Amino acid sequence: MSPTRHKPYELFYWPGIPGRGEYVRLALEEAGAPYVDVAREREGGMDEMTELMEAGGNRRPSFAPPFLRDGRLVVGQVAAILFYLGPRLRLAPKSEAGALWTHQIELTITDFVAEAHDVHHPVGVGLYYEDQKKEAARRAEDFRSARMPKFLDWFEAVLEANGATKTKPHLVGRSLTYADLSLFHTVDGLLYAFPKASARLLRNRPLVAALHASVRKRPRIARYLESERRQPFNESGIFRHYPELDR
Amino acid sequence: MSPTRHKPYELFYWPGIPGRGEYVRLALEEAGAPYVDVAREREGGMDEMTELMEAGGNRRPSFAPPFLRDGRLVVGQVAAILFYLGPRLRLAPKSEAGALWTHQIELTITDFVAEAHDVHHPVGVGLYYEDQKKEAARRAEDFRSARMPKFLDWFEAVLEANGATKTKPHLVGRSLTYADLSLFHTVDGLLYAFPKASARLLRNRPLVAALHASVRKRPRIARYLESERRQPFNESGIFRHYPELDR
Repeated sequence: MSPTRHKPYELFYWPGIPGRGEYVRLALEEAGAPYVDVAREREGGMDEMTELMEAGGNRRPSFAPPFLRDGRLVVGQVAAILFYLGPRLRLAPKSEAGALWTHQIELTITDFVAEAHDVHHPVGVGLYYEDQKKEAARRAEDFRSARMPKFLDWFEAVLEANGATKTKPHLVGRSLTYADLSLFHTVDGLLYAFPKASARLLRNRPLVAALHASVRKRPRIARYLESERRQPFNESGIFRHYPELDR
Repeated sequence: MSPTRHKPYELFYWPGIPGRGEYVRLALEEAGAPYVDVAREREGGMDEMTELMEAGGNRRPSFAPPFLRDGRLVVGQVAAILFYLGPRLRLAPKSEAGALWTHQIELTITDFVAEAHDVHHPVGVGLYYEDQKKEAARRAEDFRSARMPKFLDWFEAVLEANGATKTKPHLVGRSLTYADLSLFHTVDGLLYAFPKASARLLRNRPLVAALHASVRKRPRIARYLESERRQPFNESGIFRHYPELDR
């Protein structure tokens, strides 16, 4: 199946932030697959998204965006969407073991991203950051000193065990997978949110740093990052830059 | 493939708590599949587990337990393990769409479980509960009043959209899947940790309550729950009963 002949995929996600939708966008962009970012690009797209999230409008409603529609199939949860797209976009190994391992890495990225988010929302997602600044300061310290190093060490070890080099820094096998794209974006987000801590930690994780640099230079990704389709990080998203939380 | 003729699966997880390992155990138990709970049952099992988590001992090390070994394959992350076991234990639909949907539900359970955990550890997993009691009290309020209802409403809606009834309360299709087992255990954990809030909320989610009651009565699950293989909930695990956090 050639992705360019495929009917456009429909991605449903909140406009205004890269958010979790960005992990799906990067895979579609790298593959050059046709897609519509429904809530941003289609008139009435927001209503369409809301309707699909209600059990009345969809027998299999997602708990939250993003979700992807491909013909009659609707799939939610970033890692599940990427597991579905992986073989279709040639961004995952074909073997069951290879596909599962790529998925396992993605699920660990998911955990890391959730923790990065919770730094600024340790008490509750329904409250403003301003109402939990004290708690966030404590959580940020733990995140910078314990969690970030632990996760980054694991990715560095996975790269090393895979025989990755600075010129070929892949998490799985010898070519790019969606897990590489997702780790790229996560590191990008950390560099935005915690520039001091991230720069310091990346100095001792050369393979993770090389992966981040090399994905950014891929022709389709580079063009995408320059385009208006790429939304900048901001303080409504997962990765937020509050200077008081960085050190 | 008959599970009973299969070489025993090897489950690696911390002894002493049901924890995330329990989601895998319940699937293996319901299927009557042979398995070894390595760190609990095998001499030197803890060392074996530690070794497999290091990149030196395993080209594909898991970030954290649980992980499962099936012959040469090692897979970590609960949802990925269950995705792998699902068709093998006849606890998931065979179609790609059905398997993905079951997985998507499991991933949403994963998110719910992580939030239930973070109630008692809002500031950092490396700190004791005693050092974050004030923050935990705020987070617990948000969890009881906003997050628990939101997640439970979603499961109730999924059950309803699937045509579930009080006598056949399944999340997917007409028979039991690992997602049913996982929701059972999650509700069980919530009833332990937040007995007041859970009882109150379940009163208005009759299908979720029926699912919980019906899984508990399945012959193999009932025998398992009575056995020594089932470890009780306690205050070292995910679901902890701190009376001050319940209301």
